Amino acid sequence: MKSYHRIPRRTKQGLVITVTCLCLGLFWPWNALAIPQVSPVSSGCLGCHNSATPGIVLDWFKSRHATVTVEEALQKPVIEKRVSITEAPRGVSQTAVGCAECHTASPEKHKDTFDHNGYRVHIIVTPEDCAACHPVETNQYDRNLMSHAYGNLNNNPVYHSLLDSVNGMQSFQNMKTALKTPDAETNADSCLYCHGTAVKVNGLKKRGTSLGEMAFPVLSGWPNQGVGRINPDSSLGSCTSCHTRHSFSIEMARKPETCSECHKGPDVPAYNVYMVSKHGNIYSTLNGEWNFQAVPWTLGKDFKAPTCAVCHISSVVTHAGAVVSERTHAMNDRLSWRLFGLIYAHAHPLSPDTTIIKNKAGLPLPTELTGEQASEYLIDAKEQEKRLKTMERPCLACHSTDWVEQQFNRFENTIKTTNEMTLSATRIVSTAWEKGVARGLAQNDSIFNEAIEKKWVEQWLFFANSTRFASAMIGTDYGAFANGRWYLSKNLQEMSDLLECKLQGMKKEKRP
Amino acid sequence: MKSYHRIPRRTKQGLVITVTCLCLGLFWPWNALAIPQVSPVSSGCLGCHNSATPGIVLDWFKSRHATVTVEEALQKPVIEKRVSITEAPRGVSQTAVGCAECHTASPEKHKDTFDHNGYRVHIIVTPEDCAACHPVETNQYDRNLMSHAYGNLNNNPVYHSLLDSVNGMQSFQNMKTALKTPDAETNADSCLYCHGTAVKVNGLKKRGTSLGEMAFPVLSGWPNQGVGRINPDSSLGSCTSCHTRHSFSIEMARKPETCSECHKGPDVPAYNVYMVSKHGNIYSTLNGEWNFQAVPWTLGKDFKAPTCAVCHISSVVTHAGAVVSERTHAMNDRLSWRLFGLIYAHAHPLSPDTTIIKNKAGLPLPTELTGEQASEYLIDAKEQEKRLKTMERPCLACHSTDWVEQQFNRFENTIKTTNEMTLSATRIVSTAWEKGVARGLAQNDSIFNEAIEKKWVEQWLFFANSTRFASAMIGTDYGAFANGRWYLSKNLQEMSDLLECKLQGMKKEKRP
Amino acid sequence: MKSYHRIPRRTKQGLVITVTCLCLGLFWPWNALAIPQVSPVSSGCLGCHNSATPGIVLDWFKSRHATVTVEEALQKPVIEKRVSITEAPRGVSQTAVGCAECHTASPEKHKDTFDHNGYRVHIIVTPEDCAACHPVETNQYDRNLMSHAYGNLNNNPVYHSLLDSVNGMQSFQNMKTALKTPDAETNADSCLYCHGTAVKVNGLKKRGTSLGEMAFPVLSGWPNQGVGRINPDSSLGSCTSCHTRHSFSIEMARKPETCSECHKGPDVPAYNVYMVSKHGNIYSTLNGEWNFQAVPWTLGKDFKAPTCAVCHISSVVTHAGAVVSERTHAMNDRLSWRLFGLIYAHAHPLSPDTTIIKNKAGLPLPTELTGEQASEYLIDAKEQEKRLKTMERPCLACHSTDWVEQQFNRFENTIKTTNEMTLSATRIVSTAWEKGVARGLAQNDSIFNEAIEKKWVEQWLFFANSTRFASAMIGTDYGAFANGRWYLSKNLQEMSDLLECKLQGMKKEKRP
Repeated sequence: MKSYHRIPRRTKQGLVITVTCLCLGLFWPWNALAIPQVSPVSSGCLGCHNSATPGIVLDWFKSRHATVTVEEALQKPVIEKRVSITEAPRGVSQTAVGCAECHTASPEKHKDTFDHNGYRVHIIVTPEDCAACHPVETNQYDRNLMSHAYGNLNNNPVYHSLLDSVNGMQSFQNMKTALKTPDAETNADSCLYCHGTAVKVNGLKKRGTSLGEMAFPVLSGWPNQGVGRINPDSSLGSCTSCHTRHSFSIEMARKPETCSECHKGPDVPAYNVYMVSKHGNIYSTLNGEWNFQAVPWTLGKDFKAPTCAVCHISSVVTHAGAVVSERTHAMNDRLSWRLFGLIYAHAHPLSPDTTIIKNKAGLPLPTELTGEQASEYLIDAKEQEKRLKTMERPCLACHSTDWVEQQFNRFENTIKTTNEMTLSATRIVSTAWEKGVARGLAQNDSIFNEAIEKKWVEQWLFFANSTRFASAMIGTDYGAFANGRWYLSKNLQEMSDLLECKLQGMKKEKRP
Repeated sequence: MKSYHRIPRRTKQGLVITVTCLCLGLFWPWNALAIPQVSPVSSGCLGCHNSATPGIVLDWFKSRHATVTVEEALQKPVIEKRVSITEAPRGVSQTAVGCAECHTASPEKHKDTFDHNGYRVHIIVTPEDCAACHPVETNQYDRNLMSHAYGNLNNNPVYHSLLDSVNGMQSFQNMKTALKTPDAETNADSCLYCHGTAVKVNGLKKRGTSLGEMAFPVLSGWPNQGVGRINPDSSLGSCTSCHTRHSFSIEMARKPETCSECHKGPDVPAYNVYMVSKHGNIYSTLNGEWNFQAVPWTLGKDFKAPTCAVCHISSVVTHAGAVVSERTHAMNDRLSWRLFGLIYAHAHPLSPDTTIIKNKAGLPLPTELTGEQASEYLIDAKEQEKRLKTMERPCLACHSTDWVEQQFNRFENTIKTTNEMTLSATRIVSTAWEKGVARGLAQNDSIFNEAIEKKWVEQWLFFANSTRFASAMIGTDYGAFANGRWYLSKNLQEMSDLLECKLQGMKKEKRP
Repeated sequence: MKSYHRIPRRTKQGLVITVTCLCLGLFWPWNALAIPQVSPVSSGCLGCHNSATPGIVLDWFKSRHATVTVEEALQKPVIEKRVSITEAPRGVSQTAVGCAECHTASPEKHKDTFDHNGYRVHIIVTPEDCAACHPVETNQYDRNLMSHAYGNLNNNPVYHSLLDSVNGMQSFQNMKTALKTPDAETNADSCLYCHGTAVKVNGLKKRGTSLGEMAFPVLSGWPNQGVGRINPDSSLGSCTSCHTRHSFSIEMARKPETCSECHKGPDVPAYNVYMVSKHGNIYSTLNGEWNFQAVPWTLGKDFKAPTCAVCHISSVVTHAGAVVSERTHAMNDRLSWRLFGLIYAHAHPLSPDTTIIKNKAGLPLPTELTGEQASEYLIDAKEQEKRLKTMERPCLACHSTDWVEQQFNRFENTIKTTNEMTLSATRIVSTAWEKGVARGLAQNDSIFNEAIEKKWVEQWLFFANSTRFASAMIGTDYGAFANGRWYLSKNLQEMSDLLECKLQGMKKEKRP
């Protein structure tokens, strides 16, 4: 039984390792593996990592990055291109995109750069690194709400207080619960897994390896691949949230299970809703015959029903070559409404940084507590209409104009009714605050930490959201009994009962 | 970038369009696509729709309807037949079943028929249309509870009140909630998605298209593909609920994900239960090797474990050619019990129209509120036994007679115990009504709109149902902690606490 | 239409059947089916069962048991072996492993052995039978907690009382609920499906078959394939829980859906957590290209991301042949913590029989009600560290040492915080017991049967477990809103409210 990692042999060091790895790398039969051209530096990486971390090396071997040179990628017709540059970055035109091409790029910008066997390597490859070949996608992603997911949660006092009330430890003493601020690891293990952590570099530490002692950066907020991660080069987000390293499979990015990592819970059940829709039904029964690799993606030929990517991201064409949808990593150019995460559904925010928003009551929220929109921070009706028309284009490849319009009218009706059911819940919790049986903003307390407040949160964060998603994607189960209207209506009755019970308790307390 | 839809060019009209489409259609290389014979009229449709709605055209190209003529379908041995006619309908024997064969059939019967470029076309293809080639299946389906799903919900005052209480808006004012009747779009976006809407035709309207202005029928209750849809030709249901247009793939219809569109929520978790059963486990790990296209369907060869279709619908044979199950679209010829949707499990109804049922208390329910069956409307024990024997036949292809009998005995025990746990919940809610802390039928109020009533509903609609499904299909998770016995027992304790709390509140109110 | 079962023809009996079956069996074209060598006795079985139970016969035809002789299996290199013997059991070396090789082995040990057409056959094949060729795996499994799942639940008074409170019928009379002991079939239909039943043999009974009347053993606790089943030969467990009969597909055993049969509910959501993790995401989108049959299993080549089996059971190697993990059916040699099923997470028990554990308070629990570990029954920190290192080995094939260490540090922090949130809930329920508003051990009552107690159970059995699984496998959804920290925090507030409400009610009752 061979052991392939973490056996410290302190006699081999520095140059010896480098040379050994390089030799191993240069003599490795890349051609036999259909790897066209590995740069000498990447060969060095592979020489050791082939045995140090064989899983990711084999994964990369199967990737397009390993099997196509940048020059070859550039020769494709525009519509088939996966890169958005017009000429190759210096020095990488004739090589595969290997370890070094990403992990040693712009070392000075990366605070996690360290000396590793003679190279300046950084651990975390960021959107900035990917922008060397994919600048358009990176720029688009910067305009995506997701790239700001860390700040939009963490730097908004209202949301930060929601995070605290979910992740903080609660003690029970003297007949009372008390809430402590959550520790950083708990936040990273909860909300920030998807929203992204702020990764910080705290010096270097030495560690024994199978090739002797080496120094590595000490990172906090790590591991993490959240969509709004604050990277050590100050860039935002992580392409590997969806384009999983190290094969970066477009098939994987295009399948809805990838989105489900962050869009499956009761707060954002997009995947679940999709899977009970007719489209999800077609996908789950017939996708074995589809082609998830083709660029561009031809509807009817490569796929029969939309996945998340079709409607929200991908470049889609007809079999006659007509463009149905242009690729976007901003996503919000197809989104007229913001359906989830906030108390009321509302027109999409103008800026992906939502911390700038203030409603009339002075709260950093896109609506008043009673639902009126903070319009100056949101897109107008004309822009909403434009985005809706863009979103509708793939629908119209199979459905009639009337079908599509009536579907979206129905959806907008659901936005209205779910907002109304949220307003009723808000009136109940507001009454609790006014009558003094719960403590809200006026009492300088969190609006998310008491039982009745948590029921109010579920009204919008779970049930109204679920009902809206169900309507948007016609996955109606989630608009009926599965966290949908049944719960909207039941929760409201329970809130009403709880308020009544609390008021009775208060009266009794006051009785002499 | 070409645009393929909704660009009004008002100069081309009427005859020009027809001729253009026809020419495009007649010169399209159908043979190269292995389309044997497209009728001239369908060629005309395809000529334009190939660019107007390319998704459904390509989908149809892959279908059996496109690749087999009716005559060829008729030549199969009986056991392999997918049509249930003995001779082809007039004029379609030598052609593929294309657009016109369905969308222009019997135009006078369809209220949604309209003039479309020289043809009398209707939008909604109904079971009546499908019956041209599949009359046996259509007749069977008419006896299926599902075909009556609209009326059974909407025309039953008790159920209608459940629908209202789920879908209606609730306001909160003066310390009270008030319920409004739901609007039609909300119902269509909720319960009626599965149950079906009543589709009505409200005249014509004109709309600009890429080929100029055209007139289209204005439909309400649309889009919808619910199993009990009331169609513009007065027929019931929609074959495309399961046989998704326009490829009508038998593979898709036979996979359980198709059933899951309507049988996944907490009220009817059949799919979820199946997926945690051993059978579901076999399906989900090994179905890549199965043949979902074969007719007849050979157990052990084409599939290894039952799916929903095997037990409930499909024609199944052994590798020696013995018939295990005959195809049924009535389904209830294999169903001895009605497990879900009602307060108590009970013998299956005699008629698929359940609005005719009345219990002794005069309510349109198949049992009393205390569980006794309204037997004259339900099948008797002998018919139950007969149906059970039919249902057991595929089981016996793998399991011993004892295994199967003990499994079904266990299941019938579970029907008994879950009914008993429902009865206890009914006693609690009845006490609440009697003591005046909730308002029921005697107070002329809905029995579904207060918090304690909603808990009672969950006892039977969610937890008892789930436990019974889990027992029937041996997906035990859903009979234990996943909406099963844990919740049956917990919910009862919470109802008891709530009743006590309400009674205390009432006493206090009365105190001077 | 032929009928293939249960048609009693009482004229054919005994010897006639045997001879007929034997003839049918001996003339069946096994070679054409690539069955190398079926023993004469198994040929006899197949002769009749080919038509009596064709599903399992065809299933077996596709199995490795049918297509490889024991001698061939023995000739594989050690690393590729699927058997753990060095020489074949007497008489089966040149034959396939057919019906008789398992169902007639050691007839004297099996209480369910009966005379069947001239053979001494037993119904239930047990781990003892499998040990003829797989003794190492059987021995390992005996050390697995799962093999003791029946006794650990049923023979532990605390747990038995949980089972009773979940499965027992509750009546409601005179304003009070009363709990009855559950019947055996209900337990078998609930907890014992996974934990295993105690299968007992209660004589023989005669039954008509298609070949005339025959006698069969009467079994109680049957059907069942639970992991801790008490078999009629006194052995524990069932290999077919995961290695589903009769193809015993390694592909199936290695796919996470197999584990999901018992590890999907809210009490143990391991599968759900996996499926929202990055690893589960990779599995669900790309597993079509993997090889689930290979032994040994090469990471990066045969699979790209771990499944349940990779981390917990399988023999895993690198493409260079280095052993990453040795196969184990004990599983706990890789488990340092016991995460679920108990009130607090704690170091793994020393013995798989946990009924021997007693805490300081005298309860059969591995911790005090306040969380301190009953250390003498649990593994120590050194053993925990050793197991962690074993568990980490596959991680390190793709991830850096720092990545892995920080991930497991984060996980251990989550164990600490979830235990803390359970302690707060325990303090609330303890207060209820002390103040007399709920009845606990001091009142000689179950601690699981009242509403506030059930909320306490959910705190640890659902929400703390879910949060820990989510952290362990980085399926964070289940540590945030899907039964994770949101519910931990909300449930505590509801318990606190409920306690307050109960105390107010009590005060009022006492008031004159």
